[in-house]
Amino acid sequence: MGIQKVILDKLGRTFQIRNKLLRQGLAECLGTLILVMFGCGSVAQYVLSGGSHGIFLAVNLAFGFAATLGILVCGQVSGGHLNPAVTFALCLLGREKWRKFPVYFLFQIIGSFFGAGIIFGMYYDAIQRQYEKDHKLPLGIFATYPNEHLSTANGFFDQVIGTAALIVCILAIVDPYNNPIPQGLEAFTVGFTVLVIGLSMGFNSGYAVNPARDLGPRLFTSIAGWGSIVFTHGNYWFLVPIFAPFLGTIIGVIVYQLLVGWHTEGEARDKKKESEELNVKLNDIDSAAA
Amino acid sequence: MGIQKVILDKLGRTFQIRNKLLRQGLAECLGTLILVMFGCGSVAQYVLSGGSHGIFLAVNLAFGFAATLGILVCGQVSGGHLNPAVTFALCLLGREKWRKFPVYFLFQIIGSFFGAGIIFGMYYDAIQRQYEKDHKLPLGIFATYPNEHLSTANGFFDQVIGTAALIVCILAIVDPYNNPIPQGLEAFTVGFTVLVIGLSMGFNSGYAVNPARDLGPRLFTSIAGWGSIVFTHGNYWFLVPIFAPFLGTIIGVIVYQLLVGWHTEGEARDKKKESEELNVKLNDIDSAAA
Amino acid sequence: MGIQKVILDKLGRTFQIRNKLLRQGLAECLGTLILVMFGCGSVAQYVLSGGSHGIFLAVNLAFGFAATLGILVCGQVSGGHLNPAVTFALCLLGREKWRKFPVYFLFQIIGSFFGAGIIFGMYYDAIQRQYEKDHKLPLGIFATYPNEHLSTANGFFDQVIGTAALIVCILAIVDPYNNPIPQGLEAFTVGFTVLVIGLSMGFNSGYAVNPARDLGPRLFTSIAGWGSIVFTHGNYWFLVPIFAPFLGTIIGVIVYQLLVGWHTEGEARDKKKESEELNVKLNDIDSAAA
Amino acid sequence: MGIQKVILDKLGRTFQIRNKLLRQGLAECLGTLILVMFGCGSVAQYVLSGGSHGIFLAVNLAFGFAATLGILVCGQVSGGHLNPAVTFALCLLGREKWRKFPVYFLFQIIGSFFGAGIIFGMYYDAIQRQYEKDHKLPLGIFATYPNEHLSTANGFFDQVIGTAALIVCILAIVDPYNNPIPQGLEAFTVGFTVLVIGLSMGFNSGYAVNPARDLGPRLFTSIAGWGSIVFTHGNYWFLVPIFAPFLGTIIGVIVYQLLVGWHTEGEARDKKKESEELNVKLNDIDSAAA
Repeated sequence: MGIQKVILDKLGRTFQIRNKLLRQGLAECLGTLILVMFGCGSVAQYVLSGGSHGIFLAVNLAFGFAATLGILVCGQVSGGHLNPAVTFALCLLGREKWRKFPVYFLFQIIGSFFGAGIIFGMYYDAIQRQYEKDHKLPLGIFATYPNEHLSTANGFFDQVIGTAALIVCILAIVDPYNNPIPQGLEAFTVGFTVLVIGLSMGFNSGYAVNPARDLGPRLFTSIAGWGSIVFTHGNYWFLVPIFAPFLGTIIGVIVYQLLVGWHTEGEARDKKKESEELNVKLNDIDSAAA
Repeated sequence: MGIQKVILDKLGRTFQIRNKLLRQGLAECLGTLILVMFGCGSVAQYVLSGGSHGIFLAVNLAFGFAATLGILVCGQVSGGHLNPAVTFALCLLGREKWRKFPVYFLFQIIGSFFGAGIIFGMYYDAIQRQYEKDHKLPLGIFATYPNEHLSTANGFFDQVIGTAALIVCILAIVDPYNNPIPQGLEAFTVGFTVLVIGLSMGFNSGYAVNPARDLGPRLFTSIAGWGSIVFTHGNYWFLVPIFAPFLGTIIGVIVYQLLVGWHTEGEARDKKKESEELNVKLNDIDSAAA
Repeated sequence: MGIQKVILDKLGRTFQIRNKLLRQGLAECLGTLILVMFGCGSVAQYVLSGGSHGIFLAVNLAFGFAATLGILVCGQVSGGHLNPAVTFALCLLGREKWRKFPVYFLFQIIGSFFGAGIIFGMYYDAIQRQYEKDHKLPLGIFATYPNEHLSTANGFFDQVIGTAALIVCILAIVDPYNNPIPQGLEAFTVGFTVLVIGLSMGFNSGYAVNPARDLGPRLFTSIAGWGSIVFTHGNYWFLVPIFAPFLGTIIGVIVYQLLVGWHTEGEARDKKKESEELNVKLNDIDSAAA
Repeated sequence: MGIQKVILDKLGRTFQIRNKLLRQGLAECLGTLILVMFGCGSVAQYVLSGGSHGIFLAVNLAFGFAATLGILVCGQVSGGHLNPAVTFALCLLGREKWRKFPVYFLFQIIGSFFGAGIIFGMYYDAIQRQYEKDHKLPLGIFATYPNEHLSTANGFFDQVIGTAALIVCILAIVDPYNNPIPQGLEAFTVGFTVLVIGLSMGFNSGYAVNPARDLGPRLFTSIAGWGSIVFTHGNYWFLVPIFAPFLGTIIGVIVYQLLVGWHTEGEARDKKKESEELNVKLNDIDSAAA
């Protein structure tokens, strides 16, 4: 109709990408950006307002529904993983191809990097004011750090269990043989899962349970003025949310498959086999009759 | 059945409006009234009770679900924009006609004006008591004002980013080529989006991200006794939530289209073209055969 | 299977009621009991724990989801009004018969009476402890009372507006010509409406917006030891939540019908009329042709 | 595709269980584990952080959505009871066979035992720190204990009423003759029920309303270092959440059936009978005509 529509259409044709994996990567990038922008934004609001504009419950709600919105934005294109641990679980089970894993991981980190950047810009003045007051930049808004009481061993276990819990719930939600929710509500259910993990597993170290969500913002802060402390703080804590979630994924996959998945899967296989055998027998009878 | 039914039916026939645009305007008016009545009502409850009957999280929840209810009330008639930035985004993309924009904008402002008026009346005694205690009328219940730490440049960026985030999520929710949620849940999903924006982007200046939601109540308060301070406070802040959201809308549209929209749109176009070419070829063969 | 099944079946046949209106009344009774039991229970938990086991937001959430659950329990039988104001609105619009109104009202009061009784029993020890500490029984757990700042005129307006807001939203949710949500989600949407009303309109006098929800528990407390104070407190406040909601209902019905309802209704009527006229014309042509 | 897929498939075939009841038990085990892991995890987070990372509302939300997730994970296999009281109610009504009851009960206790164990491991350092500070292990994180003001009689009534309320709502949700919600939303609605019970009935003794959810973690803590105090504390309180819920179940079943269930059930029976009688008559007429 208007001139702007013509320009947008022309832009659309110019920038249209036909490579499917690249499109999926871009969608993951936007989804993870939304997750981190809203999630870390809520931490920033809570920390920088000194509690007047947020409580920990608000942070949990924000991360949960941010996951929902991130999945909704990119889900139809890329599946809406937003988390390398989820991509890893689906690759393990043979539902996604392994070559997706590095591409998704990379774009998830890029998305979370820019998500953190947007929040840094949005709360620039508030961060500066905090800096002037405390003479140091506030840690813990963007990446996760261990609470004082936490040993590295307990922290590693924390991340393993948190990710395993996430993966068990996500596997149940997307299991083709155990289809518990109406189609289209997966994103909301994953959001509730992230919310509940935050409500119950957030005290030790802030429930990263996602290597990209943690590494992207950490890289951003290291560049934006925090420096190397974001890596060294907490006895090189940054390594834990990168590696522990993958171990947690393996445990989550095995627990879910052992207690639910393999039996429903096997039942479907048994039924298919039976009906095939029946067909073979019927064919034999037919052949004999002919 | 009763006499009241006859009267109501007669009233209904008398007041029935057949002009579609006017009906849409009235529906937008009621929807925005509901958004502002419940939203600003929750701020009033929080501020006037001194925190005993509300926390910032409650304000976020109220604005989110108020958006849901507002959209439900008017959505079937007018689309449930409640926000000139949303109307602007849909006009930009050629999904709504430009002549709707001024009409919707006007009725959205009228709706939010009366929404603020209802809350002013409802909490009249409580506002008076606050005035007697502080010797000034409480700012910040109806329109938004910048927090002390906020510079105008950062505040402008805040409103641009907040609106861009809102528009990206809304475009994903209503994108005809990327249909992620069951029909009828759009209003709830937009409500979650508004909730999450409040949880993560509310500290700087109270997340107007909506020119009508901010201007209507501001006009009301300027008349209701606050006077010109509602415009001059915060270095003429009132201009920011009017103009910044439209810039944010343009950015949101481009980001969503660049990372997701144009590719899915283009894919649908490619498929349509292919099937058309196939038809042409088949017709050629038919013609040749004839 | 077991003996208990036989007993239950026999009981079922003995107590089966075939009178539809009585069954609807009993269902309304159970639904309102659930609303008041969970709703007032959350107030009791909040007040009696001194805030350690509740905040006002939790009370709002409890009333909202209690409304949802109450509607789910009785909705298929009685429509799930739980509120004489809702029954009144539907009678006004001719969607329910007037003779339902007194029956529903009565059973709603009975249900809320027993709902309050259950909570009184459940928190008997905690109420006694409070009594021993303060030398008076805690007001405000069961029925609503005006806040100190509230004049009766403002309180009346408060109840009128609160009920009008409720009715506008409920009419939109159940309007047969404006069907915005998937079937089966009505109860959830009404729950969100009650939640939002609590978040934004609860500070003045505790948002009764329901004559039965307020009168039933008030009657219970007057018998259970509070005495006549429950009627005299706040300048005979108890009359306000009985009468104001019905005025609010009338206003809500007119506002919704004026801004949305009559136009969509009229549109459907126009279309029906057009198709009838077309049929008449076609018949004329047929007759002429014959 | 990869080697890991082959290994997982082989594992799947090795560990596949074909006994239906055992599979259901395992699924219940995982579901209850999830309920208790997230539920008790949120209590741990609340208690151990001294309120900085949780409030009672967050605990209520966690238990509610944990119930939802637990049901989603195991619902298709076992029905998702997660609570012996629910299994008992369905057996009472003849909808499940009695031999399921002990099996489900056992696996529910096993699941909640391990759920508590995971949270104990996850918050091991934080519990140690608390122990060093207070010189005693914190009670109340895993199992429920009565509040100081509560007598055993009132506590018993509390558990009876809480369970009855739960059962009334669950019966309405799954009643085949009163089908109020879209299929697939049962788990969410049960989650809201658990949330509301926590919001309104959690102050007295922490709303166990589930013998397995309470006994499993209690057994775990008695082994993990708390010792016999978990049984003796509160005048042998541990017996109340084991036995009271079953009495509550019976009351809940009768109340729901008396006020709603038997009438809708009877109506369906009447209709069926009528159509059968009509068939008989029609057959008679047919026979007569022949």
